[in-house]
Amino acid sequence: MDVKKAPAIVLAHGALSTSDGKVAHGLIRGSDRFAIGAIIDPDAAGQDAGEFLDGRQRNIPVVATLDDALVQAAQAPSYCIIGVATLGGRITPTLRASILEAVAAGLSIVNGLHDWLREDAELVDLAQKKGVELIDLRCPPPRRELHFWSGEIHQVRARRIAVLGTDCALGKRTTTRLLLAELKSCQQKVEMIYTGQTGWMQGARYGLVFDSLPNDFVCGELEHAIVTCAREADPDIMLIEGQSALRNPCGPCGGEMLLSAAAHGVILQHAPGREYYEDFEHLELRIPPVEDEIDLIKKYYGVPVLGVSLNGHGLSADALVETQQALRAKLNMPVVRPLEEGVSALADAILAASNET
Amino acid sequence: MDVKKAPAIVLAHGALSTSDGKVAHGLIRGSDRFAIGAIIDPDAAGQDAGEFLDGRQRNIPVVATLDDALVQAAQAPSYCIIGVATLGGRITPTLRASILEAVAAGLSIVNGLHDWLREDAELVDLAQKKGVELIDLRCPPPRRELHFWSGEIHQVRARRIAVLGTDCALGKRTTTRLLLAELKSCQQKVEMIYTGQTGWMQGARYGLVFDSLPNDFVCGELEHAIVTCAREADPDIMLIEGQSALRNPCGPCGGEMLLSAAAHGVILQHAPGREYYEDFEHLELRIPPVEDEIDLIKKYYGVPVLGVSLNGHGLSADALVETQQALRAKLNMPVVRPLEEGVSALADAILAASNET
Repeated sequence: MDVKKAPAIVLAHGALSTSDGKVAHGLIRGSDRFAIGAIIDPDAAGQDAGEFLDGRQRNIPVVATLDDALVQAAQAPSYCIIGVATLGGRITPTLRASILEAVAAGLSIVNGLHDWLREDAELVDLAQKKGVELIDLRCPPPRRELHFWSGEIHQVRARRIAVLGTDCALGKRTTTRLLLAELKSCQQKVEMIYTGQTGWMQGARYGLVFDSLPNDFVCGELEHAIVTCAREADPDIMLIEGQSALRNPCGPCGGEMLLSAAAHGVILQHAPGREYYEDFEHLELRIPPVEDEIDLIKKYYGVPVLGVSLNGHGLSADALVETQQALRAKLNMPVVRPLEEGVSALADAILAASNET
Repeated sequence: MDVKKAPAIVLAHGALSTSDGKVAHGLIRGSDRFAIGAIIDPDAAGQDAGEFLDGRQRNIPVVATLDDALVQAAQAPSYCIIGVATLGGRITPTLRASILEAVAAGLSIVNGLHDWLREDAELVDLAQKKGVELIDLRCPPPRRELHFWSGEIHQVRARRIAVLGTDCALGKRTTTRLLLAELKSCQQKVEMIYTGQTGWMQGARYGLVFDSLPNDFVCGELEHAIVTCAREADPDIMLIEGQSALRNPCGPCGGEMLLSAAAHGVILQHAPGREYYEDFEHLELRIPPVEDEIDLIKKYYGVPVLGVSLNGHGLSADALVETQQALRAKLNMPVVRPLEEGVSALADAILAASNET
C-alpha cells in the first residue's frame, strides 16, 4: 500500500453502472492521491469494483452502506469522495443525507459537484465539530489569483498533445492516464495537465477545474498550468485532458486545448456506438463522424490527429473490432481499443510525430 | 431628451482614441439605457465626442475633469460609467481615484471591469454615505440562479443570426446595433441578445455577460436569454452579439453562438487592415483570411455566412473601398463598410435567407 496516498471511500449511489459514475470509475481505475478502500453503491454491493467495471479484480469492495464501507475498507478512511454526477451538479437530498452521515463518522468530504458544501450551514457546523475538511473542487481560486492568457505558452518547449473527444463522458481522461503510464514506461518525461476535478482526485499535479472558472480566465489558467508544469517538472511531453467536444451544443470545448495550449497534435477519443450527444438523445443531435471531426480539427488549428481511441459502449466486442479495423483502413492512422489492448500504438504515434519536427 | 434614460457621464481617461475605449465608443454611438452628457478624457478635451470618434456631431462634450463634466453635461448626471478597458480588467490606482471622486460627487458607478467595486471597503463605505449604487456588471448572478443548456433553444421560432468576428474589439457589437436599427426600420420584429457588459449599458434587454460566468453555465445562460426573449418579446429575428473570435488564442469563442444558440446564419465582422490578433502583435499570431474563417464556420456548424462587415482601421478610405470590392467579388456575398454606408445590404441578406427556408 502506498503510504503517501490518503485512504478514502467513494459514494457512487447506484451510478456505478452508468456514465454518471465516471468519477468513481476513474478512481477505481487508479489514483495517485487517494487509496480507494471501498465504493458505496447498493446496486452493485458484494462485487469487486474492478470486476464490476471492466472485469479486472482490483480488491476494492462495493458495499451497500457507509457502515459496511468503514468495516470493509482495507485501511480506515479519512476521506469520503462524492463519486457520482448528478443532474446539473446539484447535491440532492439523498446525497446530502449520505454526506452528513460521512461527516458524522469523522470523514472529510471531497466534492466535485457544482453545489458547494461550504454553503450548507448545517454541514459546515458539523464538519467544524468533527474537525474534518469540506473540499469543494469546483470553488474557483479568488479572482485576484487568476491569470489571463499571455502567450507565454509559446516559450514552453514540451510537446503538447491534446486528448480531445467527439462527445463528453466517453473516456478522454482514462485514455490520457493510460497514455501517461505508457509513455512513462517508454522512459519518456511526461506530465498530464488535468482539466476536471477527477484529474485532480487521481493525483495530477498540474491543471485546473475548467468548468468552474469565470469564462474569461479559462484560457489563461490553462496556459498558467502548462507554464508552471514546464518550470517545475520540465517534461518533454504534456498530455492535455480535453473536456466536452468541439461541437457539443451544451458546452462546446476544445479550441482552448488547441489554440490556448498551442497543441502540437491531437489524440481523438470516439464512441462509434453512440449516435447522439450524451444526455440529449431526445433532441437527436447527431455526433459527427470521426473523420469529419478530424477534418475540423485540422481546419481549426492546422495540427494533425495522431490517432483515435475507441470507447466500445453499445457495441459487442466483435463489432468494436470490426469498427476499429474499418476506421484504421479509412483514416490511415492508429486506432486503438484502449481498455482491451492498451495505448502503445498511440504512444508510438506521439513519439514518431515528435521526432519528425 | 428621452426622459426614460438615466443621465450619465463616462470616464474614458485617455483611451478615447484607442480600442481600449470601446465601451465609451459604444455609449457615444448610442444607448437606450443612459443619456450620455459628457465624456471625461483629457487627451480629447474640448471636442465633440461624436466628431472625435467618427466625424459626426453628437452634442456630447469631451472634458478634462469630473468638475467640467458636471458643469457641461446637458442634464445633471446620476451615473458615472467606467468607459475604459484596462489591462486584465483591473481597477488601476488612477481609475480608483476618479471613481472615489465621482462617488463623493454623488454619482452611482457602473463598472464593467473584472475587479468589483463591492470588494473595495473604502468605496463601499463612501457609496453608502452618499446613498449611491455601485453596479458591478461582471459580478455574475448567484450560482443557484444560473441555467445549464437544455436544448429548449430548438423550440424557439425566431431566426437567430450570430454576429461573429475574426478578432476581438473590431466592431461586432456596433454592427449588431446597426443591424438592429436597420431591420426595425424595415418593419421587422427584431431583438438583440447582448453578450457583453456594453450591450447591457446600451440598453439591450436580453442577454448575459459572457466573460464573467462560470464556464459551465455560459451556454445555458445564452440559451436562457434567447428563450426568455422569445417568450416575452417573441421577435421574428434575434441578433446574437459575438465575443472574441473562433481562433483567438486568448479566449476562443463563437461555437457557443453557433451551436448553443442554434444559429441559422452568421454575419462576419472583419478588419482587413489588422494583421495580428489584438494585443498579441509581438507574438505575430496572424488572423486568418476572411474566406478561411467563412469556410471554418461552414465546416463547424453547417450554417452560411450571409455577409461581411468591415472595420477600416489601419486602411485609408480608398484602400478600404478597394478591399471591399475585391472581397465582394471573391466571396460572392454582401460586404459592407458599416460606418460609412450602413448595413442595409446585410439586413437584405438576412431577410432573403429567412424567406428561403
